[in-house]
Amino acid sequence: MASPAAYAAPLREMKWSPAEKAVARRAFDLALGRELEAVVREAKDRAVRIQEPSELWELERWLTERRREIDRKYDYRYSVLPLVLASLLRDGSLTEDDLRGLGQDQLEAVRRAARS
Amino acid sequence: MASPAAYAAPLREMKWSPAEKAVARRAFDLALGRELEAVVREAKDRAVRIQEPSELWELERWLTERRREIDRKYDYRYSVLPLVLASLLRDGSLTEDDLRGLGQDQLEAVRRAARS
Repeated sequence: MASPAAYAAPLREMKWSPAEKAVARRAFDLALGRELEAVVREAKDRAVRIQEPSELWELERWLTERRREIDRKYDYRYSVLPLVLASLLRDGSLTEDDLRGLGQDQLEAVRRAARS
Repeated sequence: MASPAAYAAPLREMKWSPAEKAVARRAFDLALGRELEAVVREAKDRAVRIQEPSELWELERWLTERRREIDRKYDYRYSVLPLVLASLLRDGSLTEDDLRGLGQDQLEAVRRAARS
């Protein structure tokens, strides 16, 4: 992925209509919801498999890492949103279908970032 | 509980024979093992009951608190050990039977701290 700085100026100037904001918010929330569900499932699996007390603190560490990773990844500021959506496309959390309704320039910015 | 300082001088001067150390270590490990098992059980229960993602981070916080509490509580330095054993007696993690084999002065220090 190119550094955010490479896109920062055009992204900051990008205009979002209320309808485009709604599409972006829905896609963002969809991906976040899926990711959180996956973490809930895996946390339950990990807890069931605990046999040694030391594995408790591994679960704690794993949860802390997941929380920090999710906080870092899901940044809804419009100035970085196309980069965030691109990373969600790239890792399969979203499809292009989920982004239908975004403006042409927004989709272009997302695709460009997803390819880089 | 009286402040540790009230006991610190005599406790620091207390002598521990190898046999007394072995009794103390066994009792300490027994209580710690029971406590860790209880935390494992409760962590599994909590994980099974998770329905909302926010409860994941409650589980994380709860585990962090348990880990810190256990680290604080289970301090094996001989200079504070009678106070530690006293707190384990008081909260029911140990019985006087578990301390059989300690010297008279050690038992006295534990009982005195457990009553205070």
